[in-house]
Amino acid sequence: MKQHGFLAVLVILLGSGCTSRAEVDLASDRAALRDAVESYHDAASNKDAQSVVSMYDDEAIMIPPNADRVEGIEGVRNYRFGFIETAGVELQFETMRMKIAAGGDMAWTLAVGEVSFQQPDGEAGSDRVRDFHVWRKQDDGSWKVLVDIWNSEFPAR
Amino acid sequence: MKQHGFLAVLVILLGSGCTSRAEVDLASDRAALRDAVESYHDAASNKDAQSVVSMYDDEAIMIPPNADRVEGIEGVRNYRFGFIETAGVELQFETMRMKIAAGGDMAWTLAVGEVSFQQPDGEAGSDRVRDFHVWRKQDDGSWKVLVDIWNSEFPAR
Repeated sequence: MKQHGFLAVLVILLGSGCTSRAEVDLASDRAALRDAVESYHDAASNKDAQSVVSMYDDEAIMIPPNADRVEGIEGVRNYRFGFIETAGVELQFETMRMKIAAGGDMAWTLAVGEVSFQQPDGEAGSDRVRDFHVWRKQDDGSWKVLVDIWNSEFPAR
Repeated sequence: MKQHGFLAVLVILLGSGCTSRAEVDLASDRAALRDAVESYHDAASNKDAQSVVSMYDDEAIMIPPNADRVEGIEGVRNYRFGFIETAGVELQFETMRMKIAAGGDMAWTLAVGEVSFQQPDGEAGSDRVRDFHVWRKQDDGSWKVLVDIWNSEFPAR
């Protein structure tokens, strides 16, 4: 009986240890992902290209509409982000969805960006961009963008 | 000693049991995901709308370029897929990337679709579509599309 009791306690301890560790990790994963999303949106709104680039994974893939696919962090560094290159851009993101895989290694987010800018003829223009990210958790527990694909809600011009 | 030995065996069994189960699951997850991707591409190439719709999760989100976001399986059912609605469409997909989360609950795939079709004036047209899917594993072990976002590589017309 005594041995059984000891084993039962051991099994319960192992079991509960696993469960609570997973719960704590997911909560901190979620907090870290929220931070990463906010940092990305702030950097983009502030047209801070260096900070935006630093949010991408070394193996990142970008899939801009009507343009070639961009692969790897070097490609991201050389990419001319529209929100930086276009004159007079104002950009405000809202995060619509956020989902983390059970193992805490993969996540995705969907954000909608309201964009206003100056058209070549000087007229005010606007766009609504759906920016979809897959995030990969890094060794230090932070999250970086592994896949970035977006498109516009507005009719093609 | 005898008790310690028994405990050691128990701990090893618990440990190895967890590991090998995870390995087996991921291999079968991968096979199931490959099947799902192939089924989706076959259904799309065959313009089999019913089969395509059956590949989406009940909570699916579709984000078509230059159009409103589609939410939920009812929205997907009512969506007019371009490869079905457009005259004379031929569609051939190639899967470029496939990644499953460690826990086997979430995955993503990137496919490129080469599209040829008949333009309204009767001329032959073509497009190259990057179709990005997030997949959610279902209770029966199969995978369904939870997020579907795409855009064209070609310049906006």
